[in-house]
Parts: sequence; C-alpha cells; structure tokens
Amino acid sequence: MEVLKYNLKSGEKIILLEFELKKNLEPQDLNFINLPDPVKEKFASKLLILSGRGPIWLYGFMIHHFHPCKAIAIYDPRIDGAVIIESHSEEYKIGVVVKDIQ
Amino acid sequence: MEVLKYNLKSGEKIILLEFELKKNLEPQDLNFINLPDPVKEKFASKLLILSGRGPIWLYGFMIHHFHPCKAIAIYDPRIDGAVIIESHSEEYKIGVVVKDIQ
Repeated sequence: MEVLKYNLKSGEKIILLEFELKKNLEPQDLNFINLPDPVKEKFASKLLILSGRGPIWLYGFMIHHFHPCKAIAIYDPRIDGAVIIESHSEEYKIGVVVKDIQ
Repeated sequence: MEVLKYNLKSGEKIILLEFELKKNLEPQDLNFINLPDPVKEKFASKLLILSGRGPIWLYGFMIHHFHPCKAIAIYDPRIDGAVIIESHSEEYKIGVVVKDIQ
C-alpha cells in the first residue's frame, strides 16, 4: 500500500516537493516511504522546499533523507512561505522565508 | 532575549532534550537559538530525543544541528513515545518507538 504520494515541481533554483499521506501514518511506515534519491536527482544544486501535512517525525525523516540538498526549507501555511532550516550554501541563509515558491 | 529554553536529561544511552519557546517564534529567530554542541557534549554515543511544542521548521533546524548524534528520535504526545527518524547505528532502527524516555 502506498503510504505517501508526492509531486515534484522543479524550477531553475528550487525544487518544490508537495506530499500527501495516503493513510494515517504510523511510525513503522517510515520504512516504506519512497522518496526521490537526492543524489541521483541532482538536488545538490537546488533549494528543496518540503510542503504537506504530516507529523513532525515524518518531516524529521525527510529532512535527514534530503540532507545532500544544497539547502532545505519547510513550507508553513501560517506564514505563507518556506523557512530555510539547513543550508550548505552562502546563497541560502537559515531563517530566511522564501515566498516565491511556484 | 532568550528564544528557547531547554533542559537536558542524560541517561546511559539516551539524552532527552525538552524545550520550551519563550516567545512566539519567527523564522529569523532560528539564528539566535543556543543549543548544546552535539560534538562537544558527546551526543555521538547516544540516542537524542527531542521533545517540545514548536513549528516544524524549528524541529528541522534542530534535527540538522544534531546530525552528529548516534540517532535522533522525536517525541510525539499522541503516541506517548519517541519515533526514531535518523540513525547512524545498527542499534537504533528508523520508525521504532522508544517508550522508556525517563
């Protein structure tokens, strides 16, 4: 059974990953989530934005998975923008809100 | 102004970090959060459990900060346990719920 469905929108500098849970997620489901390989997919050159409703530990799992990305931001509907939480580039600073996310 | 207050409880195999926000957190506050240095504090040999109420992007920031830990779990009050989301050790498996957290 599919646990999580995602959609990727790839721009010049940003990849937006929008996900949706297909069931009420349980911790052991983390082992059955298929995510794109951040190395193969050349995420290393882009800012990845994660967006979707799910428990904090799902986000934790995804953040670790996408660690090779150039930078990671998390979309927060309350501020209608994505907060940069991790960066391996001078281009992206922690705590900056990205508003233009396609 | 102090943004985040935390308390560490260190056991033989686990470090529990409980945090509390001292203000309504804004994204740029991430740059003013003081967390223990995971290298200096020898987190590398322990499972770190994060517990507290805060936005997902705060957790994202903390997860990245504590990446050198042996493993990281996130406490979820709804399941009354901490879900392992990242591990660099065979001892701790992704998706396992740690119930005995001091």
